[in-house]
Amino acid sequence: MTTATTPLPRTLTRDLPQHDGQTVRLQGFVHARRDLGGVQFLVLRDVSGVTQCVGSGLSLPLPESSVEVVGRVKAHPKAPGGYEVGVESFRVISAAVEAPPVEIPKMEWNVNPETMLDYRVVTVRGLRERAALKVQAELVAAFRDHLMTEGFTEISTPKIVSAGAEGGANLFPIDYFGQAAYLAQSPQLYKQIMVGVFERVFEVAPVYRAEEHATSRHLNEYLSLDVEMGFIEDEEDVMALENRLLAAIMTRLRERAAAEFALLGATIPEVPAHIPRIPLLDARKLVTEKYGHAVGGKDLDPEAERLLSQHYAETEGSDFVFVTKYPRAARPFYAHPEVNADGSVNAEVTRGFDLLFRGIEITSGGQRIHDHAMLMDSVAAYKLSPESLEGYTEVFKYGMPPHGGFAIGAERLTARLLGIANVRYARAFPRDRHRLTP
Amino acid sequence: MTTATTPLPRTLTRDLPQHDGQTVRLQGFVHARRDLGGVQFLVLRDVSGVTQCVGSGLSLPLPESSVEVVGRVKAHPKAPGGYEVGVESFRVISAAVEAPPVEIPKMEWNVNPETMLDYRVVTVRGLRERAALKVQAELVAAFRDHLMTEGFTEISTPKIVSAGAEGGANLFPIDYFGQAAYLAQSPQLYKQIMVGVFERVFEVAPVYRAEEHATSRHLNEYLSLDVEMGFIEDEEDVMALENRLLAAIMTRLRERAAAEFALLGATIPEVPAHIPRIPLLDARKLVTEKYGHAVGGKDLDPEAERLLSQHYAETEGSDFVFVTKYPRAARPFYAHPEVNADGSVNAEVTRGFDLLFRGIEITSGGQRIHDHAMLMDSVAAYKLSPESLEGYTEVFKYGMPPHGGFAIGAERLTARLLGIANVRYARAFPRDRHRLTP
Repeated sequence: MTTATTPLPRTLTRDLPQHDGQTVRLQGFVHARRDLGGVQFLVLRDVSGVTQCVGSGLSLPLPESSVEVVGRVKAHPKAPGGYEVGVESFRVISAAVEAPPVEIPKMEWNVNPETMLDYRVVTVRGLRERAALKVQAELVAAFRDHLMTEGFTEISTPKIVSAGAEGGANLFPIDYFGQAAYLAQSPQLYKQIMVGVFERVFEVAPVYRAEEHATSRHLNEYLSLDVEMGFIEDEEDVMALENRLLAAIMTRLRERAAAEFALLGATIPEVPAHIPRIPLLDARKLVTEKYGHAVGGKDLDPEAERLLSQHYAETEGSDFVFVTKYPRAARPFYAHPEVNADGSVNAEVTRGFDLLFRGIEITSGGQRIHDHAMLMDSVAAYKLSPESLEGYTEVFKYGMPPHGGFAIGAERLTARLLGIANVRYARAFPRDRHRLTP
Repeated sequence: MTTATTPLPRTLTRDLPQHDGQTVRLQGFVHARRDLGGVQFLVLRDVSGVTQCVGSGLSLPLPESSVEVVGRVKAHPKAPGGYEVGVESFRVISAAVEAPPVEIPKMEWNVNPETMLDYRVVTVRGLRERAALKVQAELVAAFRDHLMTEGFTEISTPKIVSAGAEGGANLFPIDYFGQAAYLAQSPQLYKQIMVGVFERVFEVAPVYRAEEHATSRHLNEYLSLDVEMGFIEDEEDVMALENRLLAAIMTRLRERAAAEFALLGATIPEVPAHIPRIPLLDARKLVTEKYGHAVGGKDLDPEAERLLSQHYAETEGSDFVFVTKYPRAARPFYAHPEVNADGSVNAEVTRGFDLLFRGIEITSGGQRIHDHAMLMDSVAAYKLSPESLEGYTEVFKYGMPPHGGFAIGAERLTARLLGIANVRYARAFPRDRHRLTP
């Protein structure tokens, strides 16, 4: 009953219902194994799910070994997926030499998180762990596909930069052939430059924040989904785009990741045709008046984000809300100021917005300054160095059109969609203040 | 004739033939302008091409200004694209305050390359310059789309690492909160780990090589198209996948980037149903015997790559050739050794391959070692530190299936497809030994 090869094509677990009564060839990993008085159960895990295989007299290898099973498919209501395979031949493709330090089928989220991450090279094989990464892959694919249907072009911009896009703080230094350089915090300036080339651009790439704090919502390296769009009227065009984009993402997740949401007990949100909007000052007031929460700072604090989301979920049934018209003091130098009806500029308010989803900010965006003189005034007002930003501001001498965009943190959106409390588990190999391996 | 708005939707240059005789609204950049005795010509550039607009009495702004033209379309055989627009109203959206330092429509490849790159924020707007980046965007999209149809899952792996995948050389050091870290040279080890999760994975992300040399074929930061595939028989499965993938890429380029190839005078290659293969030692012999070129080193040198490609172009009409069975000495420690017909291992030869395209290597790939004992023997034979690689080798204790993969340098493939002599022009903002800006 060992060492058999067969010309049968490989069948995946998810396709078993199409092979009821037939003999199939499965390949995968030993997810679990049990021996019940001579009857052996082998749970085989492949990319598409797990299959219960039943046999006897098998020399079952250690968990996580790669194996091949040839056997007959039969319906079995209690088996995962509703089908079971009766083992006719069995082959070890690659034997584990040690049992994993953690039992893969028994892992729970947030149980001993540091141990889980220490052994991430194998714990990431867990069904729940990989479901999060699968959802993220589909989300990212939907992001790209939708933007391409709207005429956006994908770009790839430098992650080694000579200065930070958001000012000098929170940068990881690099030794670049003896020159000082940094890891890019954001493709912000480059994506704006590329609006001059392709008008509408996007990038999916890692960004870096050397933030010392260790929270459940921050990563030091994360995947940023960046968008920038030229020839806009104002930030409403950008919010409308993000609204359509989120709808397209959720549609694809419904089509291609329903099993992963079911496994994690999460629901895919409905995206309203018009996501509600509220100016920041009104949002602060609402949270204070309705919930008695005094909001600190100039932005919304995490509790205010949670309460504002609760309000829109309760009153409008929306998991999403745009917070608009951020004050100048809470936005970077490149944020476009609000323009009054008479054409004059309101220097205190910007055309910047955030998007909250289920109680947490997942996007910052807005219209950017495209006028060179206005931009240089803003650089001066922020007390930034015109020299260090010259490589960026220079392009605005050449007639940049009105433009705006946003960025979505892929891991944060994934975690929020799936109800994963710590954003680390929405990344294959997270980097944080203390974690540089695996 | 200035300052007009209209409720007309915007029309792109490429759609003008559908609007012959109609009034349209165009938006874009002033690509060129001429005044011929009262008749003014404005060449407007948008994302889809250029349109010749004819008017009079217009206050034309500096080149590269953003403008809007409303006017009537008429067929005009001598105009670019075969249509011209008679200006009825004209509006400056955003005026340039300086003329670009280089005349965008007159730029030539490789003329004053350092100046071109110094002013890249605006020279990248050139039609030929952006065509290269557009082709690359389509190529990358085809790469992803095809792999997803074959059941591959996209991954995102760390670019901040504690050790190099290929050994310790050519790494850019990072100060990671006071700890020593490096920019990843390759996602090699991580993509192998992820075969244990999704069986078939790919990643599109930047990689870093701190190579001091400045050649026309190397970049210090480039976009790597990485693939890894589990449950293979041997490297033939990997080469067959790359063969199908290249065919899918060229099909998409034919459908979506024909105009860019025409602009650059380049042809999209035919991908043979079975790309020819030749073992490395035979390739060296062929080049020596047929062309009298004595090949140095253990690999092929650039001249040998060129001659071998010439041979296959002449004899089989193929722009592609796989060079197979690389000697152990020319491959990294994780390369799987050749296995003889009797099951014994040939330690001197690996299952590694390169792919040459039009005279240059665009891919390295092969089967990887999956057996833990064999891998540790290889680590020892290469005199590498088992401790520094432990985070990687550990996963092979748990039964990794046979697997292999490859990586394509996106810029190098783009440059070779388009006949661009210097790979820098296949990247928006290249990084080289001396270039850290823009």
